[in-house]
Amino acid sequence: MEYRNATTAVIGAGDFIGAAIAKKFASEGFTVFARRRHGDKLAPLVGEIEAGGGRIVGRSLDARKEEEITAFLQDADATAPLEVCVFNIGANVNFPLLETTERVFRKVWEMACYAGFLTGREAARLMLPRGRGNIFFTGATAGMRGGIGYAAFASAKFGLRAVAQAMARELGPKNIHVAHLIIDAGVDTEWVRQRRLEALGPGALDNPDLLMPPASVAASYWQLYQQPKSAWTFELEIRPFGEKW
Amino acid sequence: MEYRNATTAVIGAGDFIGAAIAKKFASEGFTVFARRRHGDKLAPLVGEIEAGGGRIVGRSLDARKEEEITAFLQDADATAPLEVCVFNIGANVNFPLLETTERVFRKVWEMACYAGFLTGREAARLMLPRGRGNIFFTGATAGMRGGIGYAAFASAKFGLRAVAQAMARELGPKNIHVAHLIIDAGVDTEWVRQRRLEALGPGALDNPDLLMPPASVAASYWQLYQQPKSAWTFELEIRPFGEKW
Amino acid sequence: MEYRNATTAVIGAGDFIGAAIAKKFASEGFTVFARRRHGDKLAPLVGEIEAGGGRIVGRSLDARKEEEITAFLQDADATAPLEVCVFNIGANVNFPLLETTERVFRKVWEMACYAGFLTGREAARLMLPRGRGNIFFTGATAGMRGGIGYAAFASAKFGLRAVAQAMARELGPKNIHVAHLIIDAGVDTEWVRQRRLEALGPGALDNPDLLMPPASVAASYWQLYQQPKSAWTFELEIRPFGEKW
Amino acid sequence: MEYRNATTAVIGAGDFIGAAIAKKFASEGFTVFARRRHGDKLAPLVGEIEAGGGRIVGRSLDARKEEEITAFLQDADATAPLEVCVFNIGANVNFPLLETTERVFRKVWEMACYAGFLTGREAARLMLPRGRGNIFFTGATAGMRGGIGYAAFASAKFGLRAVAQAMARELGPKNIHVAHLIIDAGVDTEWVRQRRLEALGPGALDNPDLLMPPASVAASYWQLYQQPKSAWTFELEIRPFGEKW
Repeated sequence: MEYRNATTAVIGAGDFIGAAIAKKFASEGFTVFARRRHGDKLAPLVGEIEAGGGRIVGRSLDARKEEEITAFLQDADATAPLEVCVFNIGANVNFPLLETTERVFRKVWEMACYAGFLTGREAARLMLPRGRGNIFFTGATAGMRGGIGYAAFASAKFGLRAVAQAMARELGPKNIHVAHLIIDAGVDTEWVRQRRLEALGPGALDNPDLLMPPASVAASYWQLYQQPKSAWTFELEIRPFGEKW
Repeated sequence: MEYRNATTAVIGAGDFIGAAIAKKFASEGFTVFARRRHGDKLAPLVGEIEAGGGRIVGRSLDARKEEEITAFLQDADATAPLEVCVFNIGANVNFPLLETTERVFRKVWEMACYAGFLTGREAARLMLPRGRGNIFFTGATAGMRGGIGYAAFASAKFGLRAVAQAMARELGPKNIHVAHLIIDAGVDTEWVRQRRLEALGPGALDNPDLLMPPASVAASYWQLYQQPKSAWTFELEIRPFGEKW
Repeated sequence: MEYRNATTAVIGAGDFIGAAIAKKFASEGFTVFARRRHGDKLAPLVGEIEAGGGRIVGRSLDARKEEEITAFLQDADATAPLEVCVFNIGANVNFPLLETTERVFRKVWEMACYAGFLTGREAARLMLPRGRGNIFFTGATAGMRGGIGYAAFASAKFGLRAVAQAMARELGPKNIHVAHLIIDAGVDTEWVRQRRLEALGPGALDNPDLLMPPASVAASYWQLYQQPKSAWTFELEIRPFGEKW
Repeated sequence: MEYRNATTAVIGAGDFIGAAIAKKFASEGFTVFARRRHGDKLAPLVGEIEAGGGRIVGRSLDARKEEEITAFLQDADATAPLEVCVFNIGANVNFPLLETTERVFRKVWEMACYAGFLTGREAARLMLPRGRGNIFFTGATAGMRGGIGYAAFASAKFGLRAVAQAMARELGPKNIHVAHLIIDAGVDTEWVRQRRLEALGPGALDNPDLLMPPASVAASYWQLYQQPKSAWTFELEIRPFGEKW
């Protein structure tokens, strides 16, 4: 592997999408800074990437704390220039309106929107002096459409999309590529599989084409990273070929 | 005036749009519950409405406090059935990304989105047992487009729009009309006039057709209220005829 | 009835929406010029409006012929100033892609889009010298979303929406209100009832709240007509309260 | 070069975008079938591709004639399986509404929308039996927004987008990737350069970052082609990093 003098930060390096992104960018020679609420859960990912010759630093981080995000990104940037920053924290919940507590509404926003704003702003602060960089946000169908039961989640995802748009318009002309990836499908995780089984019955998983493989999300981020600055995409929607939309 | 046995709550009854809405619904016989951060500033509005024979109750209220919103709407509903609830709190700010503090980002969200969620949910809680009601949210261009400098404001307005959508889809079939009014123009207020003069120079106000009169916003809300349930509008965009879009 | 010195032209005055619009504007004192492919079918509508004291002129017209549209609108305008022009021709068809013939694709476009362009342009030509007027287009869900089987119909409806947008932006500052009404539901017609029964079985019509009454569409057009020029709506979406969206 | 047993058809292989697409896919080993209104103008492109070892067949074709499109695509498919079909005919015109003749409106639609429908349908007819293929449409800002003077062009581009959507929803589950590429910028062509100079004066071209290089459009199509079927993009927007949006 040819190492790059560059870091990729992944805020929200969970078991699925975030881990796939970390693996992809590590395999391309980036030093990956991976953050998770409980950093000890990163051990398998760290092990796997290092076994493959990749470089990764795992961290515990409460992304709702401004100073922790700032420190995390500064550490990444001190190791090697922060070239890519991916914000990937989800907080998918569904409650009937009257059962959506103020606590849930606030917490989902703090995780899925507020933390994204802090991440993007601090990444921009590090990238602007160098006049280059990439800041990517993981969006979802709920960022485009407020469905029943999604007052909290959709509100946060809509809010994150607005942050991404405002950043893209301000930072694009300064050579920082801001993008918002809309995953318009369920991602293939154990949790999604269980929910589908519960909701739709035993046949729910018969069609493997309806779930999005985490590696395909990572591949999409890699495509965004490779785009020439003369043809950047801000919003990229992806869905499996069998998905209804 | 023929009085109705019904209240209209206006959360965000400032000097302009909110006051116009209060006046319109009071003139149609509703008892208006008007809320403002500093309730004493409501005195002129209360005076004007009462002078015209209307009924209005003014209150101080911090809309970011769940228990205050709950109490306010319950008081309104105890006076007469809460038939219309308008959430009209704005929080228009513009800062370059790096100068958007976490405090501003959070406060704008609390005022323009979180308070709207609380308002809508509590209004729904009172309306659902009766199987009727109207919950209206004041939106803005920034709820559709995240422009430069609007990371905080657009994020909150996008988030409010998502709340409104999720509520409309859940509550519509239960005969509660949820609508989101997009004012795609500057509203004719002293503050907007000053900003335009500063930004565009002395001629900025020469074209009176580019600012939205508060009374026209109130008229739009009245149109929404009058729609038969067989033809409800969720999202209503309005702009002055001379506005570019 | 108080008559107005003004005409309302309805291009596409079929049995349902178009007829309801004609009745509404006639009842408000307009002289209505109603056009239908086969003008003799207008007899019942003419009879009903005249029995109610209204004024209406029915005409046969092939809306795909430029000279016929021009003559029709000129005749209306010669009778009394053309104040409102409603384009309401539908052409809802659904075919699998491979079975969508070039003939169908072209004909649907000619009826639902091309005729709308001609109508709008000729109405504008008559209204511009007077500096006032209203040009309204009936849109549909298919104007926002190209669903399976709707290559022809959605393409025409998307195209009509673009025409309406371009006209609204150009004519609005000249005091001509151009609007696009999106009926996001099936309209309550015999044809729609039959299709629903065929597609969904005997219970398909049990919920009366899912079909849009033609009179409610007419009421929406009347709301658009009444808007002050300081708060015009370009795009108005309406759906019955029980509709899923 | 490693040749593939596959053809790429380019309908609208003009001097800029279309030629760049042809060159890219030829360089990747496809046999390219390039179509242009006046096929003799393809000579330089054919020469360039063949000089580089690529394979290309140039043809004259009136894309508004169903039988010519059918024959062209059948010829391509008879040479090697039609794997990629790109519809790239533009027809950008701008006229004030009253000066938009019915002839212009119809012709622009025939070139930019109707021909796209025919192309997509005939490509699908060839691809469906094999259960694979890619059908790509070149869109534009005008496909999303009907600006002043664009009644004809935007209407055609909106219509094309609807065709693409309906096709994508029907054909996606059958393993045919339908995509709509939105080029949200002027493309760097002599014609666009001249128009900008005329409209904006001598400095109009000082910022090279505002025009989209044709090769970048081709690169975007190549990215779409490479997407795994588990993460397809339907709509891909691209713009140069310096573009305002």
